[in-house]
Amino acid sequence: MPFLEDLQNQIMFFDGAMGTMLQQAGLQAGEKPEEWNFTHPETIQEIHTAYLRAGCRILSSNTFGANSIKMGERAGEAVARGVALARQAVARWGRPNCYVACDIGPTGKLLQPIGDLSFQDAYDTFAQMVRAGEKAGADLILLETFSDTLEIKAALLAAKENSKLPVAATMIFDAQGKLLTGADIPGVVALLEGLGADAIGMNCGLGPDQFEMLLPAFLEYSSLPVIVNPNAGMPRTENGQTVFDVPPETYAASMERMARRGARLLGGCCGTTPAHLEAMVKICRDLPPLPVIQKKQTLVSSYSKTVEIGEKPVIIGERINPTGKKLMKQALREKDLTYVVREGLMQKDHGAHILDVNVGLPEIDEKEMMDRVLFELQSVIDLPLQIDSSSPRVLESALRAYNGKAMVNSVSGKRESMEAVFPLVAKYGGVVVALTLDENGIPETAEGRLAIAEKIVRTAASYGIQPKDIVVDALTMTVSSATDAAKVTLEAVGLIKEKLGVRTILGVSNVSFGLPQREILNAGFYTLALYRGLDAAIINPASEAMMRAYYGYLALMGLDTNFDAYINKFSQAETPVPAVQSANQAASL
Amino acid sequence: MPFLEDLQNQIMFFDGAMGTMLQQAGLQAGEKPEEWNFTHPETIQEIHTAYLRAGCRILSSNTFGANSIKMGERAGEAVARGVALARQAVARWGRPNCYVACDIGPTGKLLQPIGDLSFQDAYDTFAQMVRAGEKAGADLILLETFSDTLEIKAALLAAKENSKLPVAATMIFDAQGKLLTGADIPGVVALLEGLGADAIGMNCGLGPDQFEMLLPAFLEYSSLPVIVNPNAGMPRTENGQTVFDVPPETYAASMERMARRGARLLGGCCGTTPAHLEAMVKICRDLPPLPVIQKKQTLVSSYSKTVEIGEKPVIIGERINPTGKKLMKQALREKDLTYVVREGLMQKDHGAHILDVNVGLPEIDEKEMMDRVLFELQSVIDLPLQIDSSSPRVLESALRAYNGKAMVNSVSGKRESMEAVFPLVAKYGGVVVALTLDENGIPETAEGRLAIAEKIVRTAASYGIQPKDIVVDALTMTVSSATDAAKVTLEAVGLIKEKLGVRTILGVSNVSFGLPQREILNAGFYTLALYRGLDAAIINPASEAMMRAYYGYLALMGLDTNFDAYINKFSQAETPVPAVQSANQAASL
Ligand SMILES: [Zn+2]
Ligand SMILES: [Zn+2]
Ligand SMILES: [Zn+2]
Repeated sequence: MPFLEDLQNQIMFFDGAMGTMLQQAGLQAGEKPEEWNFTHPETIQEIHTAYLRAGCRILSSNTFGANSIKMGERAGEAVARGVALARQAVARWGRPNCYVACDIGPTGKLLQPIGDLSFQDAYDTFAQMVRAGEKAGADLILLETFSDTLEIKAALLAAKENSKLPVAATMIFDAQGKLLTGADIPGVVALLEGLGADAIGMNCGLGPDQFEMLLPAFLEYSSLPVIVNPNAGMPRTENGQTVFDVPPETYAASMERMARRGARLLGGCCGTTPAHLEAMVKICRDLPPLPVIQKKQTLVSSYSKTVEIGEKPVIIGERINPTGKKLMKQALREKDLTYVVREGLMQKDHGAHILDVNVGLPEIDEKEMMDRVLFELQSVIDLPLQIDSSSPRVLESALRAYNGKAMVNSVSGKRESMEAVFPLVAKYGGVVVALTLDENGIPETAEGRLAIAEKIVRTAASYGIQPKDIVVDALTMTVSSATDAAKVTLEAVGLIKEKLGVRTILGVSNVSFGLPQREILNAGFYTLALYRGLDAAIINPASEAMMRAYYGYLALMGLDTNFDAYINKFSQAETPVPAVQSANQAASL
Repeated sequence: MPFLEDLQNQIMFFDGAMGTMLQQAGLQAGEKPEEWNFTHPETIQEIHTAYLRAGCRILSSNTFGANSIKMGERAGEAVARGVALARQAVARWGRPNCYVACDIGPTGKLLQPIGDLSFQDAYDTFAQMVRAGEKAGADLILLETFSDTLEIKAALLAAKENSKLPVAATMIFDAQGKLLTGADIPGVVALLEGLGADAIGMNCGLGPDQFEMLLPAFLEYSSLPVIVNPNAGMPRTENGQTVFDVPPETYAASMERMARRGARLLGGCCGTTPAHLEAMVKICRDLPPLPVIQKKQTLVSSYSKTVEIGEKPVIIGERINPTGKKLMKQALREKDLTYVVREGLMQKDHGAHILDVNVGLPEIDEKEMMDRVLFELQSVIDLPLQIDSSSPRVLESALRAYNGKAMVNSVSGKRESMEAVFPLVAKYGGVVVALTLDENGIPETAEGRLAIAEKIVRTAASYGIQPKDIVVDALTMTVSSATDAAKVTLEAVGLIKEKLGVRTILGVSNVSFGLPQREILNAGFYTLALYRGLDAAIINPASEAMMRAYYGYLALMGLDTNFDAYINKFSQAETPVPAVQSANQAASL
């Protein structure tokens, strides 16, 4: 596709505001801009042409709110006309490599669980717009001004499943780089990349100055070209009119600085005019595009929290799992979701960063239960979740509805497993736990487990899944059945980290199966695994022994700045005494 | 010295029984054999000559009991005459490379604390014999039939300090390879080697069959030529006469097997006759001598217990040390040794393998206190001790009186320290703790500490101290004063083990200085240090957290056969459930 080709090696220019221009042309407050596709087609075309003349290369169709929720049955036609008007403007302009983006904004309604709109209804609304836009000749889909990750997920899925068009997606952040829901830039990047967007970024809400403050976070995490479409400053009301203060030259200078830092798609939102865009294009046209670099961070997220795996060791709560847990079994059988949510909250309170969610019981409908449990958990708890099921059907349904980038537990080295799970991860995004076992069972040596991990990573690549989205589980075996079980697993963790550079995970407690006072062994093994480079552990955060091992390890290894976490956890208002003469006895000899 | 040269590349033959021959010649019960040096010199010479004729190369003088305790003022003359008679027999025999050993047996009295004889009085008694023997022309000193490690230590020190003669030393074991006091062969080997014996082994008590059972232990641990001088079987009383049943050919066959396994000095004790020795020499004379190999075990011992450092991690109790301990300070000031001993017993009960003993307080006489504390501890507690003092004077006095092979805490890489401590270790034996610091302080890097350890090992070698007798302390620094303190120490432990192959030790608790709930950090650091190869840790064995870390580590790493220690420590009569399907969840995918 020419648009995607251009994107690879050029700086691309979006247009500026449509609404601002329409207001200048006489659009009344309360009047829907998209109605003008029917009533003032020439005005729309003139605005498009003005942006083309300014040097813009991507026109956003006047279809931002042309959805069935706002426009009812006229929505489809409004999209079709809006895209057609932009298409015609490009055709008349006559120069090559100018593109039409079918512009899609949020529905204006809140999604469940916060609001009433169901995920599926949102999806259907966007799907209609996407189909109409593609049919009318759009070159790409532009999702813009979204503030809810779940809504943009519905829109992005709708775009991917109902057209072949590339998708650019931008969200609206506050000056701290947060969405309204609290989600941060790394989490947004992880979500949109995982769902297959082609370019991502921010638009609206802030002026170019603030965008400059937020851009580094995008560039640090994004492996996709980054879009910056700011307003012409922060809006201000003057004589009942909304005014934007940043003049074209100032705007252009700010955009140039962002281009030089690595932004690859530049445009404007509210308050920007062809004059802003012209000044910008003039100054940025001949800048060399910086290459888009593949990033390595392993990120999972919820609707408001992002967890990076590989920075500091991560705790994954193991308690939402019926295996060996009588009360959890009973709760699932009786659909007592309160109990399940309480176990989640308890684990959060004890310091879990992610919660594993496994509802597999032979006597219940696992898919239905997983969907319900995830919905309830995400209504109350802001931690990222690890969807834990051996059924691809359960995984797909859960991954589709999950608000964020989930962990997926798990895939193995078996061909059947990889063929079932990798397409889901490739489509919905996610960080997948890779078990080092295959058709021949679990290798008894560290090298054998490395070989399976290598096979999984290689196969994942053929699905477009990068190593950063694979967390390898070298499998904790039971010492009471093989004395070198712990040794081999620890060695495998070290080897896999060293040779493959992927993140690692272990369920810890299996090591002590069949022995008394299991926490002693679990805690010792956990400490050693952390030392070998374990990035995430599935444990019970309510276990005092495990949390002592965890916080003790962080403090010992310099991963707990100022010992804040350690002291907070283990003392009441005690502060460290400065230890001037450590090893004092030794030194006195 | 020709004797030592011969020893290097030949199998050497001691003679057989003197007492048995004298009885055959008419010695009456109750009559002192050494009196015959005065009354029947020709008989003594005839016996010597008979053994020379049988092919023996080392004659033991008839001086076994010629000490001042048994013979009063006649002792010196009895030794002189006994050695002279053997000397004359060798001279008349006229062949080269025949030697006279001044034979010295135990005093017959028990040493303190079990008996009345002081260490110094025992030493003086042996010193007189040694001086008389050397003056009369002995080629070596033979200490034989000792059953108490402290008494043979007095004799060996007397031999080394009062003559320039080589020393051969043999003790009397039971069929289980134990001395009367309970000491085992590795401990005896460690003690005698440490004190500078030239050949060591066993004599008397058992027949050659039993010696064959015990020889492997000697050969496994000894870096010196091993002596086997068995009786002609187990003694039996027949018609009021002591009878030995093993005939010469059987005896010789057994001795041949031992020579083929590696025994390097062969002879006989009670019940053996020139006929036994002749048969033995005939069959063994042309056997190729097996090389004496330097062994690598790091051994410390008390009067009855031996601890190998480097096999399983060793716990050294830290509680007998006034630093930071108010009650211990008070006890030492008030000379309340009961308190000190109680702390020792408490640590033993909790699982300590060795006890550190530090009594350094500015306001007390450290040397006197150390001597008293060691004496009291060794009267009650059978664990090996670690003598912990920064004063060479205190160390020497303690090392001299200590019953066993002690740990010495410590030497550093400072020239002054090495020049003061290494001569003591070289003379008295011992395993010395080497702190990786020198005139420039404590290096901040693992490589820097390795370099100091290497310097210490190299310098020790110039004193004749082998790497096996050095345990390197890479120095636990305080994390609250440097965040990478623990990391560097752990790395140093690993590096020093890998590059130098020496044992390692750490005092653990310094890591947590200044932070709350120090046991959490101590236990975590201990677990990690064990994983990096720590061989010994100076800790508080009464700390539940530390012992959980210790036993947990052993169980996890396959160092606790059948989990016996773990289960014994942590459960009442629980046994492990066989875990057939470990990682069962994983395998079911
Ligand atoms: Zn805007
Ligand atoms: Zn806009
Ligand atoms: Zn004997």
